[in-house]
Amino acid sequence: MSQQLKYAVFGSGSWATAIVKMLCENLDEVGWYMRSVYTKEHLLKEQHNPSYLSSVEFHLEQLKLSNDINEMANYADVLIFVVPSAFIHSELQKLTVDITNKTVVSAVKGILPETGKLLGEHFHDNYNIPFDNIGVIAGPCHAEEVALERLSYLTISCADQQKAQHIADALSSDYIKTKISDDIIGTEYAVMLKNIYAIAAGIAHGLGYGDNFQSVLMSNAIREMKRFIKKMHKMKRNINNSAYLGDLLVTGYSTFSRNRMFGNMIGKGYTVKSAQMEMSMVAEGYYATKSAHLLNSKNKKKTRLPIVNAVYDVLYEGKDAKKVFKKLTDKLD
Amino acid sequence: MSQQLKYAVFGSGSWATAIVKMLCENLDEVGWYMRSVYTKEHLLKEQHNPSYLSSVEFHLEQLKLSNDINEMANYADVLIFVVPSAFIHSELQKLTVDITNKTVVSAVKGILPETGKLLGEHFHDNYNIPFDNIGVIAGPCHAEEVALERLSYLTISCADQQKAQHIADALSSDYIKTKISDDIIGTEYAVMLKNIYAIAAGIAHGLGYGDNFQSVLMSNAIREMKRFIKKMHKMKRNINNSAYLGDLLVTGYSTFSRNRMFGNMIGKGYTVKSAQMEMSMVAEGYYATKSAHLLNSKNKKKTRLPIVNAVYDVLYEGKDAKKVFKKLTDKLD
Repeated sequence: MSQQLKYAVFGSGSWATAIVKMLCENLDEVGWYMRSVYTKEHLLKEQHNPSYLSSVEFHLEQLKLSNDINEMANYADVLIFVVPSAFIHSELQKLTVDITNKTVVSAVKGILPETGKLLGEHFHDNYNIPFDNIGVIAGPCHAEEVALERLSYLTISCADQQKAQHIADALSSDYIKTKISDDIIGTEYAVMLKNIYAIAAGIAHGLGYGDNFQSVLMSNAIREMKRFIKKMHKMKRNINNSAYLGDLLVTGYSTFSRNRMFGNMIGKGYTVKSAQMEMSMVAEGYYATKSAHLLNSKNKKKTRLPIVNAVYDVLYEGKDAKKVFKKLTDKLD
Repeated sequence: MSQQLKYAVFGSGSWATAIVKMLCENLDEVGWYMRSVYTKEHLLKEQHNPSYLSSVEFHLEQLKLSNDINEMANYADVLIFVVPSAFIHSELQKLTVDITNKTVVSAVKGILPETGKLLGEHFHDNYNIPFDNIGVIAGPCHAEEVALERLSYLTISCADQQKAQHIADALSSDYIKTKISDDIIGTEYAVMLKNIYAIAAGIAHGLGYGDNFQSVLMSNAIREMKRFIKKMHKMKRNINNSAYLGDLLVTGYSTFSRNRMFGNMIGKGYTVKSAQMEMSMVAEGYYATKSAHLLNSKNKKKTRLPIVNAVYDVLYEGKDAKKVFKKLTDKLD
């Protein structure tokens, strides 16, 4: 891959906006597709995203903005998808141009609810993209801290390590350190699972459990994550690397996390519906919970997932959070 | 060990007070040794510790209080030491009675600075106590949450698993869940190391690093802890169990942690001396840093300990925290 490759980001939420900002530190031009005509117009007029990370000022001469997904897919060599997992399926249905030879990178924080597949798998299976051309961007990284240019670390995964390095270089800067990995499946599942555990942390907090319990929950969560990912894709990995444990911690301990907030409301007694209505942003973990539960139920020999199952019982089975978590405390150690 | 064994706690800080409270849930009588005559008198008059966890009311008929360490050592079969590591050596010098047949339990959060030994090793080497009679209590557990009776988990380690279970039973209650382990060396080192990492987390926070970096720091800290403990005492252990990772997290993420507070002041520009003067409680991690650094320097093949070394350079070599942590960021991933 040469340095002249064109990059485009698909999505206009806070994480998409943060990734565009990172790329702008290195590239002369960055493609940016967004669904909303209003967002594009606002960016052209005010040089910032109206809804997310609006403190970040962009230089318009660096941005190639478009509301046409096909135009953008045509333009770019490296396509970075940062659309909430619940919307990605409908977005991708607009895609008609051939992307077989493109590099497709997932910064999506979940599984496609319609197919139960990771974005990488989806592209591989439906668009004939070889795994060598599929990448994943993992944190730990709150978009809000990227806006403030606070030091953050990213892990870029791709089976082709040279490609991973190329993408890493495009994202690196004074405040972004990157490392590469070949575990695309594992890092993508980790990103998905952490949001479930953040919901669990929020529920526990809402129910009045304290910091001692929270640390036990996280310590059990990383072991549960290890079991889950190992079952899905066995390979040598250190689950305590930043892309897995670090990402879990930044989400589970952050009071800014939408997933934790969502869980907190449920712990405090909101119904799932009313908690969802109160929140203007999508809590990815809501969909991830269903997907993880479904994936595990398909396994002949099920993996022990007490935390995922507890969250599932609360969110999808209408069970009482207080009772479910009381039972959960006996399954943790 | 029969259920009639007598327990005594040595120390009167917040963690000692919390352990006495836990034992009082199960035992008819709990011995409690404290240096301060004033604290004993206050307890007798007001039924609570004047300085720590003063919201916890004790029933005097359950307590056997003493200012005489030998009287208490004579009385009890199980001696739980909860004195700050910096004071334990001078306390133990008062001990003249034979404790060879007693069970000695360490809830000390560090290494004896005078000898560089863990409390368990110290008792083994100096008092001829076999390792089968030596136990360790590990968290994750803020004493303050025990006072509030918030659900907490403890790990009790002893080479003799029956003894471990006996101690665990004496500590268990509605709000305390326990598990047992045979890794006395590993859990005691973990308790020591977590305080160093909490200082590091505090320094980083004081210097303006954010949540993204904090999670990378913790993810590196647990890997560093694993390397350190493995070098000191190789055995099969899951470093992500609550006694290791959980304890690290509750300390590293807590704004109540004395060690984190101490680090935070240094990050904000206080000198080590002035930060120490500002704090009325001992930051265990200060001594632990020196001990860990020294232990590692004695190894022929040194373990890679970038975080411990960075904290050491700031606390003991007078180096500038900002510069040291800037360099540290390049060593983390």
